[in-house]
Amino acid sequence: MVRKVRVGMVGGGAGAFIGEIHRKALSLDGELELVAGAFHRDPERSCAFGASLGLASSRQYRDWQEMLSKERERPTDERVDLISIVTPNDVHAPIAIAALEAGFHVMSEKPAARTLDEALEIEEAVRQTGLIYAVAQTYLGYPMVRQARALVADGAIGPIRKIIVEYVQGWLSQTVETDGQKQAAWRTDPVVAGPGGAIGDIGVHAASLAEYIAGSPMTELCASLTAFGSGRVLDDDASLLFRMENGAQGVLTASQICAGEENGLSIRIYGEEGGLSWRQEEPNTLWHAPLDGPAQRWRAGADRGYLSPAVRSQMRTPAGHPEGYIEAFANLYRDVAAAVRDLGEGEAAYPGIDMGLSTLAFVDAILRNTRDDEKWTRVKDRGAL
Amino acid sequence: MVRKVRVGMVGGGAGAFIGEIHRKALSLDGELELVAGAFHRDPERSCAFGASLGLASSRQYRDWQEMLSKERERPTDERVDLISIVTPNDVHAPIAIAALEAGFHVMSEKPAARTLDEALEIEEAVRQTGLIYAVAQTYLGYPMVRQARALVADGAIGPIRKIIVEYVQGWLSQTVETDGQKQAAWRTDPVVAGPGGAIGDIGVHAASLAEYIAGSPMTELCASLTAFGSGRVLDDDASLLFRMENGAQGVLTASQICAGEENGLSIRIYGEEGGLSWRQEEPNTLWHAPLDGPAQRWRAGADRGYLSPAVRSQMRTPAGHPEGYIEAFANLYRDVAAAVRDLGEGEAAYPGIDMGLSTLAFVDAILRNTRDDEKWTRVKDRGAL
Amino acid sequence: MVRKVRVGMVGGGAGAFIGEIHRKALSLDGELELVAGAFHRDPERSCAFGASLGLASSRQYRDWQEMLSKERERPTDERVDLISIVTPNDVHAPIAIAALEAGFHVMSEKPAARTLDEALEIEEAVRQTGLIYAVAQTYLGYPMVRQARALVADGAIGPIRKIIVEYVQGWLSQTVETDGQKQAAWRTDPVVAGPGGAIGDIGVHAASLAEYIAGSPMTELCASLTAFGSGRVLDDDASLLFRMENGAQGVLTASQICAGEENGLSIRIYGEEGGLSWRQEEPNTLWHAPLDGPAQRWRAGADRGYLSPAVRSQMRTPAGHPEGYIEAFANLYRDVAAAVRDLGEGEAAYPGIDMGLSTLAFVDAILRNTRDDEKWTRVKDRGAL
Amino acid sequence: MVRKVRVGMVGGGAGAFIGEIHRKALSLDGELELVAGAFHRDPERSCAFGASLGLASSRQYRDWQEMLSKERERPTDERVDLISIVTPNDVHAPIAIAALEAGFHVMSEKPAARTLDEALEIEEAVRQTGLIYAVAQTYLGYPMVRQARALVADGAIGPIRKIIVEYVQGWLSQTVETDGQKQAAWRTDPVVAGPGGAIGDIGVHAASLAEYIAGSPMTELCASLTAFGSGRVLDDDASLLFRMENGAQGVLTASQICAGEENGLSIRIYGEEGGLSWRQEEPNTLWHAPLDGPAQRWRAGADRGYLSPAVRSQMRTPAGHPEGYIEAFANLYRDVAAAVRDLGEGEAAYPGIDMGLSTLAFVDAILRNTRDDEKWTRVKDRGAL
Repeated sequence: MVRKVRVGMVGGGAGAFIGEIHRKALSLDGELELVAGAFHRDPERSCAFGASLGLASSRQYRDWQEMLSKERERPTDERVDLISIVTPNDVHAPIAIAALEAGFHVMSEKPAARTLDEALEIEEAVRQTGLIYAVAQTYLGYPMVRQARALVADGAIGPIRKIIVEYVQGWLSQTVETDGQKQAAWRTDPVVAGPGGAIGDIGVHAASLAEYIAGSPMTELCASLTAFGSGRVLDDDASLLFRMENGAQGVLTASQICAGEENGLSIRIYGEEGGLSWRQEEPNTLWHAPLDGPAQRWRAGADRGYLSPAVRSQMRTPAGHPEGYIEAFANLYRDVAAAVRDLGEGEAAYPGIDMGLSTLAFVDAILRNTRDDEKWTRVKDRGAL
Repeated sequence: MVRKVRVGMVGGGAGAFIGEIHRKALSLDGELELVAGAFHRDPERSCAFGASLGLASSRQYRDWQEMLSKERERPTDERVDLISIVTPNDVHAPIAIAALEAGFHVMSEKPAARTLDEALEIEEAVRQTGLIYAVAQTYLGYPMVRQARALVADGAIGPIRKIIVEYVQGWLSQTVETDGQKQAAWRTDPVVAGPGGAIGDIGVHAASLAEYIAGSPMTELCASLTAFGSGRVLDDDASLLFRMENGAQGVLTASQICAGEENGLSIRIYGEEGGLSWRQEEPNTLWHAPLDGPAQRWRAGADRGYLSPAVRSQMRTPAGHPEGYIEAFANLYRDVAAAVRDLGEGEAAYPGIDMGLSTLAFVDAILRNTRDDEKWTRVKDRGAL
Repeated sequence: MVRKVRVGMVGGGAGAFIGEIHRKALSLDGELELVAGAFHRDPERSCAFGASLGLASSRQYRDWQEMLSKERERPTDERVDLISIVTPNDVHAPIAIAALEAGFHVMSEKPAARTLDEALEIEEAVRQTGLIYAVAQTYLGYPMVRQARALVADGAIGPIRKIIVEYVQGWLSQTVETDGQKQAAWRTDPVVAGPGGAIGDIGVHAASLAEYIAGSPMTELCASLTAFGSGRVLDDDASLLFRMENGAQGVLTASQICAGEENGLSIRIYGEEGGLSWRQEEPNTLWHAPLDGPAQRWRAGADRGYLSPAVRSQMRTPAGHPEGYIEAFANLYRDVAAAVRDLGEGEAAYPGIDMGLSTLAFVDAILRNTRDDEKWTRVKDRGAL
Repeated sequence: MVRKVRVGMVGGGAGAFIGEIHRKALSLDGELELVAGAFHRDPERSCAFGASLGLASSRQYRDWQEMLSKERERPTDERVDLISIVTPNDVHAPIAIAALEAGFHVMSEKPAARTLDEALEIEEAVRQTGLIYAVAQTYLGYPMVRQARALVADGAIGPIRKIIVEYVQGWLSQTVETDGQKQAAWRTDPVVAGPGGAIGDIGVHAASLAEYIAGSPMTELCASLTAFGSGRVLDDDASLLFRMENGAQGVLTASQICAGEENGLSIRIYGEEGGLSWRQEEPNTLWHAPLDGPAQRWRAGADRGYLSPAVRSQMRTPAGHPEGYIEAFANLYRDVAAAVRDLGEGEAAYPGIDMGLSTLAFVDAILRNTRDDEKWTRVKDRGAL
């Protein structure tokens, strides 16, 4: 039996986008378990939110300092293994350092810190404690991104010459930070977000994606930052030329004023002998275009024999099922759970026995149609769904 | 606080595809919890598998009959609420009926039963007990499918005239059932699968999708079934013409010998005033083509104001993030959990402090490049990733 | 030097869609030349239209009978070689037969005739005269369709099992035939169109595409025809199951009431060892999915070495240029021709010397920027375009 | 009747890609006619090529100087109106200037000249003579590019903020210029091509596309040029940041070493209120994404009422037919022309009466199937195609 890793969370209270994602992600496979948390800067709301998640009352903490000290006192086989930091950027570094020093592993939302200097302090703490520190560069978790890295490392496209990477969003086209949009408010505030706007929020994803797949760091760059939104201090649009240690030339665009775009992270990598292309909005497909011959569409899927074994082991579904399939399934379970709780009230949102009957009446009619060789066969009455 | 619904599972032991999916789906949102199970026809393996999932030893059952009777004896606030049936088709009906009669709600893998007659018996048990019975027509859980149904109901495309629905797969192109492929073996065996092959396994998904979105049942059909695989008794390829109560004409194709296809479920619905189109392999997009004017690409996303509120409430991420995003995140957590367990061994598979430093050195170089207005700025050394 | 083939046209006067397409197509490569024609049922309009095309006045004919008899009297090296028939369906057969009997080759718009009996008469005339008779099944002219046929013939996908072919349009969703839409009027009139509606107009394209690529005829079918448009006699929607001589099972949909569709002709062919897929709306791409390994995207292009030599010889452009590229070019020429004719009037619609200067100032600035290694270099003033 | 504009061509002899495209484009609509030419630097080959095109022997010129002087002596209603220049870059300017000074309008392949200074001399000649001068920025001829410009001018996306434009090709990934590839040889030779490599050959297309749609010139830029091909003097890869007079920020990539790319010209333009996106490889689609609401897919088509009337008038086909449709048609005509010339020899490559019969037998079977209401109806024998 796999031991469940125990997690304590900092941040991610009511209304936080990324905290909720972290909770779903950590519980997806049954390998980790959220057991403690300090979710808000306000102590009362922090505890209340912990209660709403069903945490034991002794582990609904008032603040992260309390969580670190109280958890430390618990016996080893009970205390949290891992502190998950999902706050705004300004407290990433102090919490990470304190957690490491208290003996806990850390998973931090990106960026590791507001500034390079702060990040160097974290590095020092990691070195001193020998503990695990991970930063949530989410996009490096996509199996086909890992496959791309493996293909480059295997020389499938030869030495890399050119990289075009971009991350374009449109949600800051208007100054929503002045309309109470909480996500926008802290991201456009240099005190909380740090000195980078779009470049710090999403440009770093694009950069790490390029470096990760290429297996080579950027060495030089030339940039242009703009703040289009009226009154904005931080950049909401950035473009840059870059050069890598491996000799590749690159172009990177990171912008949050590309009206109409959703979450357009994409990368194309060209080597001497072929090219690779991947888009986050269609993450299960990786294109490999050799110099000669037709382009190949590599598809995610635990059953795709042509993928690296290491990559395949990270997939949860066979080809064709991957995108949101588990979420679709989870919706049915959520509908049923709601019905279980409120039995007798509300309208059933899940497919019930009517649907079961319906599909079997369908099969039954087909079998009769085939057996009797009549042209049209009546399906048994089932009423509208 | 939301009460967690307690689930007991039947089937879905080691190597089962759909059982694993059910477990991930039910735990995704923290609203349900697997607490008991009988996972194998072999009692020893059943208990061992329950142990491997970390279930309490008293709830690692030898068979489903034992689970039903023992759970029934537990106090109300502890016993399972819901029996999840993820066995092959042959025992769906008897387990569902026994579970209902023992006082448990039921979530059953599809089909509800092998035959229409069996399904009618389940219907009777549902009526008698007043309990919840749901069948996992997974694809009805996709938010954009529900949006399509809402658009039809609102008259967005006028009265429906034509439906083209298909579910094409290629995995039975060869007779893999004779090579030890367990999934293929029982699906091609009429004793276990029931009298329908491709039509019963995937045709029913296509049919329910059409009926669900159209809000109207099929009334007549005309079919052609073929078994291409050498020695196969059940159809592996089916096509049919159908007519609906609402007057629509339809074409349905369900085939498992469409070499090269993965999980190609798709539907197009044409009304007097427009058309809708959806594909499972790109589930976050729904096309709406009005009679005049450009086609519109509707996109899933909890933040898309143009979607129905009921549909939006079923989405976990904003636009552009949906497909596999949580899974990508979960991969990072899984990597970290593995490292936590095996501290000091193996290579780190997660992005660590190096990545944190790297991205901040990147931002730092951009800010210096912009401030100094030099053309090329050196990025601080970080070494290869 | 290639001798130009001389063409005489019947039908295709002012406002006719397909006649105009025939004229552009025959003149594209400089291998054929339109020299004579009878374009309207009304003799005066027929001659006037011939004049508008710049035909010699002696070859602006009052009707097709006159064209056949007068052309016959001309010397061999002057008279038309080929009669191109682009009328509505009702006169395809009589004109084709008369043309053949008068000693002319024939290119006929499809269908060859209104009924099978009429077509058999044409076959008899072809046999008697030994002349060339071609029917414009346009879609068989696409290079990637021919490549698909070659791949099937070469066994690339093994014996064929299943074909899904469809031709869906939306332009008859409303009864435009009663609003003066000429194209719709004759196609919905059984006297002119023959006994098939959508099935005769576009279903035959789908059928010939399937038979052409598969290299095997249909032997049996089972159909459902519907007329959705109020007051329509002929089908505007058709679906059918079919079987081929080679044992393949098929589904064919041909409908003109699929609201929102444009000209959706597509085909998928599945064999024992792989599948092929082609869509007319993206005609330069042919998908080949082997049983194992990634799907391959074959692309049209005279320079694509992996295509059959015979197919490559039918392409006019290298890869990436094909779709509408010549038409884009032709638009510039047309703009210039208009300017040449109306010198001094109207606004220039073509890119002129300003554009030439503009692009060179752009290159000039880049070269200076690179040479001087300054960050930002001013582009020489050129004013707005 | 539209008067045909008479064209004399310089360059574009045997094996030239772009000369052949010019000839097809100018003859497509029957509005221009090639009547004279000097096609090679070698006088004998020049005349021989003119003969192969069927030009009158008196107009098969030895060189362009001869063409200009001889054509000038012809009567007005006979001499060429327009000189089409399709040579390599080095002689664009001298020929254009000489042609203008001799009284002829000019259509020149791009770039107008090798250098900015040369282009200024052409501008002077245009001013002096008052004649028409056009440069073949082909991509500005695409109807949907013109529609994009119209939408921007109409304020559909508000003031422009950001432009991402790229032109990526892979054909110079290897040093094919040393293997006798003629197109590559002159493009990589600075004496013939001028000082820009990829930037001059394709970067200018990207730049003019951006400026044309935006309706605003670039004012500043910052570039990085690289020559990856061993031994290359000119850049084969270029990226740049740019700023426009209208305040927009831009990124432009032009590269010919992007292995696996074909002819990847694309542009995205983001304004305060929405975005536009167009790709040359799918030229009949223009995306318009408003700030709120679903993205709209605008499609080319002479029958699309939502397009600008001026744009619609430049389309030759209704929606869904545009891409390569005329070329597919032209292939059938070419097959027939070949058969007419070689009657009795070779195998028929065009669909003949067998195809005509086949499709009518298909319709006939459908009608019988429907009339008799039998399930399967035999299609009359037609043999394999």
